[in-house]
Amino acid sequence: MAYAHRVAPGTKIKLRKYDPDRTVGLQKDEALERFAKLSAELGGLQEELYAAGQHAALVILQGMDTSGKDGTIRRVFESVNPQPCHVWPFKVPTKEELAHDFLWRVHQVVPRTGLFGIFNRSHYEDVLVARVRRLVPKDVWKARYAQINHFEALLAASGTIVLKFFLHISKEEQKERLLKRERDPAKAWKLSAGDWGDHARWEDYMKAYADALSRCSTEAAPWYIVPANHKWFRDLAVCDVVVQTLKSYRSVWRATLVDMSKTRLAELKAIHKRHRSERRS
Amino acid sequence: MAYAHRVAPGTKIKLRKYDPDRTVGLQKDEALERFAKLSAELGGLQEELYAAGQHAALVILQGMDTSGKDGTIRRVFESVNPQPCHVWPFKVPTKEELAHDFLWRVHQVVPRTGLFGIFNRSHYEDVLVARVRRLVPKDVWKARYAQINHFEALLAASGTIVLKFFLHISKEEQKERLLKRERDPAKAWKLSAGDWGDHARWEDYMKAYADALSRCSTEAAPWYIVPANHKWFRDLAVCDVVVQTLKSYRSVWRATLVDMSKTRLAELKAIHKRHRSERRS
Repeated sequence: MAYAHRVAPGTKIKLRKYDPDRTVGLQKDEALERFAKLSAELGGLQEELYAAGQHAALVILQGMDTSGKDGTIRRVFESVNPQPCHVWPFKVPTKEELAHDFLWRVHQVVPRTGLFGIFNRSHYEDVLVARVRRLVPKDVWKARYAQINHFEALLAASGTIVLKFFLHISKEEQKERLLKRERDPAKAWKLSAGDWGDHARWEDYMKAYADALSRCSTEAAPWYIVPANHKWFRDLAVCDVVVQTLKSYRSVWRATLVDMSKTRLAELKAIHKRHRSERRS
Repeated sequence: MAYAHRVAPGTKIKLRKYDPDRTVGLQKDEALERFAKLSAELGGLQEELYAAGQHAALVILQGMDTSGKDGTIRRVFESVNPQPCHVWPFKVPTKEELAHDFLWRVHQVVPRTGLFGIFNRSHYEDVLVARVRRLVPKDVWKARYAQINHFEALLAASGTIVLKFFLHISKEEQKERLLKRERDPAKAWKLSAGDWGDHARWEDYMKAYADALSRCSTEAAPWYIVPANHKWFRDLAVCDVVVQTLKSYRSVWRATLVDMSKTRLAELKAIHKRHRSERRS
């Protein structure tokens, strides 16, 4: 049974139909055990991705404040894997970034083949906060869905495996987490003036997310809805999708690696042979 | 009468129908006079583009070796205009560039609003030399026409004025120019091993150019065929298109500049008033 829900391309989703508390009957202990196994697998897969150098992997994390984007990155991607993995947090655009098209700053930092890139927020903010907070006219953000699809299709065509996760928490859960942050001196700095304002605009954000997920889930770059009220389930769900997806490329990578090994072995043999004949003469 | 030919979007062109020797009956002296006038106008237009800061301008120059890309840049864009204008020459892609999609390196250096950018060669090489020299499989370069159109539409949607010029010389003219280069010690360094090889592939290149111009001339980013056997006519033709195009934006820019001036004037008046009341008290 899948932990996260893959948004089928071309379907129109309603977010209230997806339960943020979902754990498919798993207990925390069991989930952590399964997560540990997948985590180890992910390390190996990243290594093969890197060595084969045929594909790049791009993970896009979106979700409301406190939905756990930072935590997911720490738990799933940074703590376990030995291979280089670049995290790009996208903040409010700078003046220079605003003087370009909205994909300009994003395109610059897409991963090259062999590498694993993670976007903490992304170009989707330009159809989320930009829409809800009316930062651009309607016709501008409306045109962006197609622009995003074309952009992600370009990445996919050049060998980038694109995976997009919406970390789905409930409005009540966010309220609790925001209150907890306020009370915690070590975390209070994370709160920005906009956080409660966005909380108040919850329904507008859910509508904007539903549209983004519906319009931009493609075969080349699918969206996954991750139940995220339980952090241990969220981590398991994200890790599972990444591992299952990368696994489907493993046979291709291994074939390449075998070819590379053969070539290298032949080179080594040739060197060895030359050395022997030099010693003889 | 237009000097350059604008490729109407959606039409299929044949390059042999366009005479590289075309001068529309102009003599060199008269052409130089007209060019000088347009040149001066271009300076003013660039200044207004810069001051209004609403649009960016991107000029893409393509053409066979010796067709005069460097000369056009020097004569039309660099010698006359006071405003900053960035020239980006695109060479054989580096390893790092090849590890990304073909538009990655190009997107990074598109001009921001207010600025004027010039591409000396461009992403079109990826459907020209890449096709003729079979650097990528057919399905890869075929998919690129649509990818280019989507990319340029994105730039246009965010306020970039895109103008593309094909500097059209004849095969005989190229031969003469290559021979001249070989004989000139000051210019021989410009010759690369591939130049004569590309000359031999002339017909293939013309086919690739005709396809690129036919498939990628859009309302948002039109292609212009520039008769380029005569350098003085080539410069006039390019300058003319740039000036006529930018001119169509002038009323918008001037309205913005007037608004900006009014705001500034009001600010100055307020400062002046404050100073007076401070002196009085």
